[in-house]
Amino acid sequence: MEKRRGLMMVLSSPSGAGKSTLAKMLVESDPVIAMSVSATTRMPRPGEIDGKDYYFVNALKFESMVGDGAFLEHAKVFDHHYGTPKGPVEGALAQGHDVLFDIDWQGTQQLAQKMPHDLVRVFILPPSRDELERRLKARASDAPDVVARRMAKAGDEISHWAEYDYVVVNDDLNAAHAKISAILVAERQKRTRQIGLHGFVESLTA
Amino acid sequence: MEKRRGLMMVLSSPSGAGKSTLAKMLVESDPVIAMSVSATTRMPRPGEIDGKDYYFVNALKFESMVGDGAFLEHAKVFDHHYGTPKGPVEGALAQGHDVLFDIDWQGTQQLAQKMPHDLVRVFILPPSRDELERRLKARASDAPDVVARRMAKAGDEISHWAEYDYVVVNDDLNAAHAKISAILVAERQKRTRQIGLHGFVESLTA
Repeated sequence: MEKRRGLMMVLSSPSGAGKSTLAKMLVESDPVIAMSVSATTRMPRPGEIDGKDYYFVNALKFESMVGDGAFLEHAKVFDHHYGTPKGPVEGALAQGHDVLFDIDWQGTQQLAQKMPHDLVRVFILPPSRDELERRLKARASDAPDVVARRMAKAGDEISHWAEYDYVVVNDDLNAAHAKISAILVAERQKRTRQIGLHGFVESLTA
Repeated sequence: MEKRRGLMMVLSSPSGAGKSTLAKMLVESDPVIAMSVSATTRMPRPGEIDGKDYYFVNALKFESMVGDGAFLEHAKVFDHHYGTPKGPVEGALAQGHDVLFDIDWQGTQQLAQKMPHDLVRVFILPPSRDELERRLKARASDAPDVVARRMAKAGDEISHWAEYDYVVVNDDLNAAHAKISAILVAERQKRTRQIGLHGFVESLTA
């Protein structure tokens, strides 16, 4: 009973709102959801593993995948391309596994067009503008011009908040994690996601 | 932040699926949701308190309330009338409190017509037909003919499962309670329920 098709949960937020940390907490706390692995043309950062963190591909390969319709969504962010290969996601959903996406509003719009019924969109907001600035500046690995570009992009990303189903303000990581976990548990109980309910109900009233 | 209008959660199920127990667990575990108090023309059972468990009214009073449009929903179940007085519910929602309803499909349909945006509909199913029968027979206070009528009514109630947003199979009380709690937490995070998000987002990007 309660067999179901997997769902696609998107977490979007301006950079610095805690999205990546929350995605990691969710995958670690929930055995049924796994992170979608994107393809990207950017260089690996220290410690990143090809096929686990990203599929690292060059621009030519990326373009040929676009041409083959191999992406559920793809976008250019700053100077690099990112995209979600279709096959692994569709396989996971069919087996009742959930897939988590850490993507921006552009990718979310494309997913919403292609797979509206499987999609659960969560937008994460920082608790205040000061806190957002503080968090962006705290990333030691980023040069000042990167921080400035991120602040500009943050405003752009935030302007799309109303395209999401759920909004969570991340003023406390554990509280925000609990809310997003609850969204996941709740969405799994949606009548429309559960496969075989018709047959089960018939068995109750036979 | 995250100020919101309260929501109305309906739990419906065939008698014997654990709905009343789950409603009690939910109200006891969650400080923000309270049980809606119905008016009824049936006699109080031992221990029931007027104004807390029900408003016990006679048939004439009930009819005059119907005439005054004082009910959000009302229905006849077996030989008795039940109805939800409108005023207390609207007051609670406006103050950001959630209201829990233990009502059948007839009442749910009426609530859905009157307040579609505030409504979250959860249908609880028993784990099997055998278990449903067993639970109905285990109620020592009910005469055999009441059990038989309840079984017939169970089939009628179950036939409306597809009118609900969420379906939870109650094969384990604690697990079912956790799922319904998660639905409540998640629905509170719906973008459309949160009041003041526009202003908050403006403060982030100002």
